[in-house]
Amino acid sequence: MFHINDNFTKIPQSYLFSDIAKRVAAYTQAHPEQSIIRLGIGDVTRPLAPAVVEAMKKACDEMGREETFRGYGPEQGYDFLRQAIVQNDYHARGIDISADEIFVSDGAKSDTGNIGDIFSRDNVVAVCDPVYPVYVDTNAMAGRAGNLNVEGRWDRLVYMPCTAENGFAPAIPQKRADMIYLCFPNNPTGASITYEGLQQWVDYARENGSVILFDSAYEAFITEDIPHSIFEIEGAKQCAIEFRSFSKTAGFTGTRCGYTVVPKELTCGGVSLHALWNRRQTTKFNGVPYIVQRGAEAVYSPEGQKQIRETIAYYLHNAKVIREGLAEAGFTVYGGINAPYIWLKTPDGMTSWEFFDALMEKAGVVGTPGSGFGPSGEGYFRLTAFGSLENSIKAIERIQNAVRN
Amino acid sequence: MFHINDNFTKIPQSYLFSDIAKRVAAYTQAHPEQSIIRLGIGDVTRPLAPAVVEAMKKACDEMGREETFRGYGPEQGYDFLRQAIVQNDYHARGIDISADEIFVSDGAKSDTGNIGDIFSRDNVVAVCDPVYPVYVDTNAMAGRAGNLNVEGRWDRLVYMPCTAENGFAPAIPQKRADMIYLCFPNNPTGASITYEGLQQWVDYARENGSVILFDSAYEAFITEDIPHSIFEIEGAKQCAIEFRSFSKTAGFTGTRCGYTVVPKELTCGGVSLHALWNRRQTTKFNGVPYIVQRGAEAVYSPEGQKQIRETIAYYLHNAKVIREGLAEAGFTVYGGINAPYIWLKTPDGMTSWEFFDALMEKAGVVGTPGSGFGPSGEGYFRLTAFGSLENSIKAIERIQNAVRN
Repeated sequence: MFHINDNFTKIPQSYLFSDIAKRVAAYTQAHPEQSIIRLGIGDVTRPLAPAVVEAMKKACDEMGREETFRGYGPEQGYDFLRQAIVQNDYHARGIDISADEIFVSDGAKSDTGNIGDIFSRDNVVAVCDPVYPVYVDTNAMAGRAGNLNVEGRWDRLVYMPCTAENGFAPAIPQKRADMIYLCFPNNPTGASITYEGLQQWVDYARENGSVILFDSAYEAFITEDIPHSIFEIEGAKQCAIEFRSFSKTAGFTGTRCGYTVVPKELTCGGVSLHALWNRRQTTKFNGVPYIVQRGAEAVYSPEGQKQIRETIAYYLHNAKVIREGLAEAGFTVYGGINAPYIWLKTPDGMTSWEFFDALMEKAGVVGTPGSGFGPSGEGYFRLTAFGSLENSIKAIERIQNAVRN
Repeated sequence: MFHINDNFTKIPQSYLFSDIAKRVAAYTQAHPEQSIIRLGIGDVTRPLAPAVVEAMKKACDEMGREETFRGYGPEQGYDFLRQAIVQNDYHARGIDISADEIFVSDGAKSDTGNIGDIFSRDNVVAVCDPVYPVYVDTNAMAGRAGNLNVEGRWDRLVYMPCTAENGFAPAIPQKRADMIYLCFPNNPTGASITYEGLQQWVDYARENGSVILFDSAYEAFITEDIPHSIFEIEGAKQCAIEFRSFSKTAGFTGTRCGYTVVPKELTCGGVSLHALWNRRQTTKFNGVPYIVQRGAEAVYSPEGQKQIRETIAYYLHNAKVIREGLAEAGFTVYGGINAPYIWLKTPDGMTSWEFFDALMEKAGVVGTPGSGFGPSGEGYFRLTAFGSLENSIKAIERIQNAVRN
C-alpha cells in the first residue's frame, strides 16, 4: 500500500474562521434584528485601481489576437514586471537588488509555503507567537515542526512570544534557530520594527548561519521611518529572503500576484539559494497569468501609484478611527499606524473568545480572537481596517455606547 | 548553519531546451540565409477564444467596481467553475464526480508537482520512459528518486519503457510501485490508451494498493473511442487522481488554469486523500484569479465550445499534415491522431541528436530530440502540431525535399 505524508495527520483542523462563522450564524439566527459589522476579515474591500483594470483589459485583448497572443511566459515573471518592481520597490529606496533576483508568483501565501521545498527537514524553525498560521502549518507538513504538545505548541518549533510586555518585538531566541520567519509590519499585532531592531536580527542570522524569511506583505501601510525591506539592512543579502505581495498593496487578494526576492549572495555551503528557488519554480510552477502581470505592472504607473495610495490612505484612515475610538473608550490598543491591523488587549482579564462573544452581543461587531493566532495571542483581539469608513465609524460608536452602558 | 534540501543538488540542470536554443543560435549565425521553422515547442500559438476574452474583460470590469469586486475566493475554485467542469467534463460523459471533488488550480504542472506533498517519501514511484520531466524532477526533489546512476536513471524510480516494440504502452511493472504516473494521450509519444488497457492499470493499482496519478492534459485532442478520463474506468475512484488543464484545451498556457480531481472514495489507511489535498491547497495556495476563472468558465459556453473546437481541429489538421507527410517521405511515425505530438523513429540508426542536427541543417526544421525525455526516447524525435498550418506544410515540403536530395 502507498503511504501518505503522516505529518498532515498531526495538524489540527483550522477551526478559527469556521468557528467564528458558526458563532455569528447562531447569534444572528437568535437575534435577526441585530445588524453585524465584520471587522474580523483580513481581506480588502475596495475595488482594483482603474489603471490596473485598464491594463488587464488591454492584455485580454492582446491574448485574443494572433499577433499579440502570449503562451508560456518565463516562470520567474516577465521582464517588464521584474524591472518595474526592482526600480520602484528597491532602486527608488536605494536598495541594490537586480531584476533577476525577483521571482514573480501568485502570492506570498504560496511562496512562504513553498519556500520550504529548498530547505532540509533538519532545520530548527523559529516563529513569532502569535503568528500567520501558514508558516507553522507548512513546516508541520514538511516534518520540521515535530509533534503538537498539550499546550498547542509544536515541540520542534522555537516560539518567540510577542506581547505587550516586550512591545510585540520578538526576542533573539536562546536556542539556535536555522530558519527564522519574521513579518513586519506584523499580522496580526500590527507591530513594526525599527532599523536597529532589524539589524540585530540580520547580525544574529549572519553570526549563527541562520536564514531569515522576511514577509513584508504590509509594507505599503508604513507611515513612519522604519524599514520597508529587509534589504535596507546591512548584510541582509547574505542571510535573507523577502516576500512581497500586491494583495494588500493594490487589492489583489482575488487577482493573485506577489513576488519573492532571493539575493544571489545568499548561499549555503557554496550552493546558491537563488539557483535552488529558480529550480523549484521552473519545475513546479509555470508563471503568473500574462494579464495579471500587466495589471501588476500598472500598479507602478503614475496613475496606478496615485490610485493605490488613495486606497491605502482610506484604509489607514479607518485604522486611525478604530484605534483612537477604542482608546477613547478605554481600551489598550496597539498597531494601526504602520499596518491595517489593530490589536487590542481584552479588558478585565477576559479570554479572547469571551471578548469575541461580548463584542458581538453588546455591539454587534465581529473581530478575530487573538488566541487563534497562537498561544501568546490569548487575551488579545484583532480588528482590521479593511472595511468601509462608514462601518468602521459605526462599529466604534457601538463599542463606545456598549462600554458606557 | 541552516541546511538546504540536498536532493536539489542531485538533479542535473535541464539542458534540453537551452541546448536546443544554443544549437539553433549557432546554426543561424553561421547560416543567416536559412529560415528556421520551429516544430519543437510544446506551446500553443492560436489566440484565446473570443468568448474567453469577453468573459475576462467583463470580470476585469467587475473587479473595478465596489459592488462587484472580489477579494479572496475559495482556494478550491469558485463554485461556478467547479460546476461547469463537473457538468461538461464528467457528467456529460456519464462519469459520477461531484463538484467538490474538483480543485481548480493554476495548471497541471503545479499540481503534478505539488501532489507529492501529501505522500510519504518512502513510496516507490513508477514513471514511463520517455516521460514529462516534471514527474521525475519533483520526486527527485522530495527524495523519492534516490540517486542518479551513470546511465541517467534514478536508482529508486521504476522506469516503464514505452517504445515501438511495445506500442508505446507501458507494461505493468515487475517490481511493486506505490505511485504510478500515467499520461494519456501521451506527451511526448502521442500514444493513447484503450479502455481495456487502462482497466488493467486500475485493477493492478487496486490489487497492489497503488495510487495512479493520471495526467489527461491532452484529452481534448482525442478523436477515437478511448477514455477521456480515468474515472470512466470501473474502480478508478478508489485508486486514482486526475490532472486536467485548460492550457492545450483552450490555449491557456499563458493564462494559467487547470484542475485536479481527487475522489472522496480514495483513502489510505482510512485517511481521505481529498482531505489531505484540500488541506495542502488551503494552506499553500490562495486560488486562481477570479478573472481567469471566469475565462475558464466561458470555455464551456456554447460559443466557447465552438471556438475552442475550431482551434483544436486546426492543430489536429496540422498533426495530420505532419504525420502523413513524414510517412510519405518514408519515416516511421507514431502519434498525431489523439494528440498534438508526432513521434518519429530516427532513420538509419541515428541518435536523436544526430537527427536533430541533420533536420536543422538539411531542412531548416527544429524539433525535440526524444532522448531529452528519457533514456528510452533515444532514437526518437518529437514534432508538435502547435505551429501554423502554413509552417507545418512548409516544414513537411522541406523535409520531403531533403529526403529526395
